[in-house]
Amino acid sequence: MNNKILVLGTMAYDALETPFGKTGKILGGCATYIGLAVSQFKSECGLISIVGDDFKNIYLDLLESKGLDLSGVIKMEGEKTFFWSGKYHNDMNSRTTLDTQLNVLTKFNPIVPEYFKDSSFVLLGNLDPNLQLAVLEQMNNRPELVVMDTMNFWIDGYRDKLDELITKVDVISINDEEARQITGTHSLVEAAKKIQAMGPKYVVIKKGEHGALLFYGEKIFCAPGLPLEVVFDPTGAGDSFIGGFVGHLSQCDEISFEEMKFATILGSAMASFTVQEFGTQALEDLTLKELKSRINDFKVLTEFKLV
Amino acid sequence: MNNKILVLGTMAYDALETPFGKTGKILGGCATYIGLAVSQFKSECGLISIVGDDFKNIYLDLLESKGLDLSGVIKMEGEKTFFWSGKYHNDMNSRTTLDTQLNVLTKFNPIVPEYFKDSSFVLLGNLDPNLQLAVLEQMNNRPELVVMDTMNFWIDGYRDKLDELITKVDVISINDEEARQITGTHSLVEAAKKIQAMGPKYVVIKKGEHGALLFYGEKIFCAPGLPLEVVFDPTGAGDSFIGGFVGHLSQCDEISFEEMKFATILGSAMASFTVQEFGTQALEDLTLKELKSRINDFKVLTEFKLV
Repeated sequence: MNNKILVLGTMAYDALETPFGKTGKILGGCATYIGLAVSQFKSECGLISIVGDDFKNIYLDLLESKGLDLSGVIKMEGEKTFFWSGKYHNDMNSRTTLDTQLNVLTKFNPIVPEYFKDSSFVLLGNLDPNLQLAVLEQMNNRPELVVMDTMNFWIDGYRDKLDELITKVDVISINDEEARQITGTHSLVEAAKKIQAMGPKYVVIKKGEHGALLFYGEKIFCAPGLPLEVVFDPTGAGDSFIGGFVGHLSQCDEISFEEMKFATILGSAMASFTVQEFGTQALEDLTLKELKSRINDFKVLTEFKLV
Repeated sequence: MNNKILVLGTMAYDALETPFGKTGKILGGCATYIGLAVSQFKSECGLISIVGDDFKNIYLDLLESKGLDLSGVIKMEGEKTFFWSGKYHNDMNSRTTLDTQLNVLTKFNPIVPEYFKDSSFVLLGNLDPNLQLAVLEQMNNRPELVVMDTMNFWIDGYRDKLDELITKVDVISINDEEARQITGTHSLVEAAKKIQAMGPKYVVIKKGEHGALLFYGEKIFCAPGLPLEVVFDPTGAGDSFIGGFVGHLSQCDEISFEEMKFATILGSAMASFTVQEFGTQALEDLTLKELKSRINDFKVLTEFKLV
């Protein structure tokens, strides 16, 4: 087991509107958030993504300064970067997509750099299942751990390929609505069982402000949602989560349920920072000391003595 | 500090419809659920309530067989028992009231039995704040702990009296929507602060399947929602919660945040049984051994090692 992490995902421009304000085009995309989260760990992390020629070099420099390997990121001349614009409602749990411009994403043919073909950890961010599969197929051997995310768009329209992918991963990390959509069942316990039966040994169901559930065999672990006074911008929370999750596992001697539990807490802690500022700001500024302190907050939050 | 618990609340007939089936008129009411939950503890518990002459003696016998004191329960001739009928939707978090017949409830003038006027614990179930205040005023001295519940109906239409009551209690136990409605704020952390500023030292915010939060000063404790494969009927979950909550505290030498945390878990465990069967069935059958085992499930659910 090496500690190389290969990440597939989007690099994007986002324009966000929340009850607290709105942004112009800012840095976004799941590979960006995942990479920034992983950069807290001493693992080698390579991103596979594509951007247009309008993608600012300062953003590439930022990611490189965090130690991320961008040899798998294509900058395509004459094309524009993937753009997403969304508006969050007062409860911050629901959002409306205002605009999606796929742009360069329609030309994306992910190529795994030679150096990362033996990565022990492969993290397939939320993207077309065909591309997620294409990356898996380029690996020299079966990675130690394959983690995937997805969303309603792919569940609706790419079901066959998505199902094929799900059979090939170890961990699926999705939100409650996605779990219900995939399985057609309301109970998250039942939904997790159905997804486990499809292949993944570990199922993570994220519940936004209500925390996350980790399912493994008959076992369940619950990471609480850290009660925050202000949730500024939920964008990237799920990506920060899996980034922190895999980042931790890449540092472990072996992958056990105990380590998965801690990884779920670490991912939740990472996400709790992300939502406290617009875009990637909080992740960019995050220190390991702050992260450790917050993990302790999660422990204190649920700890009680049996009497 | 004695271990007498005085409970004010409704005793009712409920007719329930859930995705799993529907019932005829069955035993309901918050005092009923609270009493059954409290009956797990070796405390003296007196109920204050009112029923019509249609209220079956077998229900009164049931409650007495559980050791509950019914000297404060009036059976009024020529009147009908309070009736509520509701339908739960597929997600089990939302419900529609189909019918409410206040009946005998409109004549309710609660009288605290002499023996319970020195109760250390007073539990004011969800009811008209005027009646909740009337019970408090009949106590010989300030009880050690006053706990209250309420609901949207009283928040909407009885705000002055409700606010007066809130200043006089130690613990308020409400759900997330009620906390938001009382304070006009979405963030539960902010809402809890605003309610604490009104008087209550402890604020419990219940989040249904997502667990409960306990606020005390700057401290927060999170009781997870136990992931259940089937939620059969959510009726009485909140009442079972406060019954278990106060039941535990009545057994403590002193009331501390540590004990409050455990009480929150115990209440959550109690509620988790209630929702697994229709009406009061699960609470009626519950054994102390099952309860202890489930409390352990809550511990296992959130326990992780810091690495």
